[in-house]
Amino acid sequence: MNELDITTTQAWGSLGINQPLEPVIIPRRALREDDVRISIEFSGICHSDIHTMRGDWGARQYPLVPGHEIVGRVTAVGADVVDYQLGDRVGVGCFINSCGSCHACQQEEISYCENGPIPTYGGIDSYADDEYTQGGYAREIVVRESFIVRVPEALDPAAAAPLLCAGITTYSPLKRWGTGPGRRVAIIGMGGLGHVGVKIAAAMGAEVTVFSHSTSKREDALAFGAHDHVSTAEGLPENYRNYFDLILNTVSVDLETEDYLGLLRFDGSLVQLGLPGAPLQTSTRRLAQFRRSLSASMVGGIRETQEMLDFCAEHGVLAEIELISAEDINVAYDRTVASDVRYRFVIDAATI
Amino acid sequence: MNELDITTTQAWGSLGINQPLEPVIIPRRALREDDVRISIEFSGICHSDIHTMRGDWGARQYPLVPGHEIVGRVTAVGADVVDYQLGDRVGVGCFINSCGSCHACQQEEISYCENGPIPTYGGIDSYADDEYTQGGYAREIVVRESFIVRVPEALDPAAAAPLLCAGITTYSPLKRWGTGPGRRVAIIGMGGLGHVGVKIAAAMGAEVTVFSHSTSKREDALAFGAHDHVSTAEGLPENYRNYFDLILNTVSVDLETEDYLGLLRFDGSLVQLGLPGAPLQTSTRRLAQFRRSLSASMVGGIRETQEMLDFCAEHGVLAEIELISAEDINVAYDRTVASDVRYRFVIDAATI
Repeated sequence: MNELDITTTQAWGSLGINQPLEPVIIPRRALREDDVRISIEFSGICHSDIHTMRGDWGARQYPLVPGHEIVGRVTAVGADVVDYQLGDRVGVGCFINSCGSCHACQQEEISYCENGPIPTYGGIDSYADDEYTQGGYAREIVVRESFIVRVPEALDPAAAAPLLCAGITTYSPLKRWGTGPGRRVAIIGMGGLGHVGVKIAAAMGAEVTVFSHSTSKREDALAFGAHDHVSTAEGLPENYRNYFDLILNTVSVDLETEDYLGLLRFDGSLVQLGLPGAPLQTSTRRLAQFRRSLSASMVGGIRETQEMLDFCAEHGVLAEIELISAEDINVAYDRTVASDVRYRFVIDAATI
Repeated sequence: MNELDITTTQAWGSLGINQPLEPVIIPRRALREDDVRISIEFSGICHSDIHTMRGDWGARQYPLVPGHEIVGRVTAVGADVVDYQLGDRVGVGCFINSCGSCHACQQEEISYCENGPIPTYGGIDSYADDEYTQGGYAREIVVRESFIVRVPEALDPAAAAPLLCAGITTYSPLKRWGTGPGRRVAIIGMGGLGHVGVKIAAAMGAEVTVFSHSTSKREDALAFGAHDHVSTAEGLPENYRNYFDLILNTVSVDLETEDYLGLLRFDGSLVQLGLPGAPLQTSTRRLAQFRRSLSASMVGGIRETQEMLDFCAEHGVLAEIELISAEDINVAYDRTVASDVRYRFVIDAATI
């Protein structure tokens, strides 16, 4: 490795907490033996990007470039890289390193690394030179081979970008809790996460029901493969008591946990994907009656992300996106917060 | 069926709520086609018997004869009985009927019957003539063939009796949550349930740790196969953070749920077997960090109870018991409430 080999890349990021995003130039490290350099084509805007940039989770080091729904093509590989070649279409998700040795890492579940996985942006890579990580709103990125995935050519690359976070965040719990034919899945909320979750669960063969406060997305829900769309404005429907095998809560608002648990049948699970502020609370009896479970899940690991992408390619699952230029990022943030997007903004990296 | 065929049996029961138990005579129904008549040899005293008889869960119809840890021998079979013959040693547990058609019953998980399983005593069998059910502190019982299990001759029948409730209540979640070599199981509380749970989990090959308020049962815990015994009088030990795959809480006292969840590693589950009064409460973050789950479990079904008995016979697992005469039942109740038993009272039914 040679300091002179460090490159820079055009990017969009912030110069301080809660500042608008603007063009910035950031360094990308020289290729290590196991690194892959990627020319980014598309980068999705995840709600957590907005939380981070607006300081909801505290200040970071600036400039900071967000983005962890990244699709691009390989432009260079380190000497030890074996699985990727120049021109391969690849993806990068939420984490770009982990300890590699803990109980979770040994199971390739890097998101749950006991020593802390390294986020794709805004983190210090304590496993590699304490590098400060910068995300995907950029023209290029350099990532360890073992933290990238292959994006099947069959997938539209722009609409595939959100699969790297929204896709795997829903695919992983759907797999973990056994989704398939004969299984009944409810998805609470149909935003960026939820709409992909509906498509994946339906593609897995489950009967899918969407719970949403309003009825405005009912037609979309049915088009995405849902069996029913239930408005919760008037409370939970009686006919879905003791009904579901799995409920995924994709929104971060506080739910009446015990009421939603009552919608589960024997061995059913209520799984939180967001991080609502209030504690979750239930009586033991509500759990014991049908051996119900309450849990929470993050994104899946690299192996499972690859599996998800292959699944999506096989079943034609893609995110619904609005493709934007980099100069529209700040407006897109406002519109995402206002839920004024169906269903995910993706940045055309050629405009960065 | 003929009214004249109804028999009576000697039993011990109460004539009213919170009354001491005394000798009573109760009817046993005439054999139906699928019934088995059992001459009871041993009947365990479960803590829930005491709750029921002392009115903790409300009044019942009296006289009421408790007991759902029943071992005996077949003395008569109905015309359609195929699996049992005179002289077979059999057992009866917590439930003697269920709807047979719901989602749970179809999976032979009768305890979770959506239409309500029928308890072995103190219930109305709405699936069969609205018969009032009377339990196992008796000389005889009549039960449907499909709700009895075979007790292997290799098992001491007195020490096997508590397996019908305490055994299956711990075996079922140990199986459900994947106990075996390489897995780390904590058992909170080492009473009637807990001590059998320790033996079964150890026999399954797991590393077992007992959490107990005092240290008085430490030696027993190690003798039963535990790897360690931790006193929680001073709080939870730091060295078991992010450690266990499964924690079974066998006591009904209120725990700091979130603290105990912190003892689980990736994909670990905290499972309540008792019914503490206070709600369970946790942050979502505590669950999401390692995809931890919070759940609760009841006794397993008939098929699984048979599997458990066969497992116990194969591995030499039995409850630790104090065998008593029927006339000592009321004293045994007081001693059980005072935790003055190691670890289960069993009534010699010949003394009833």
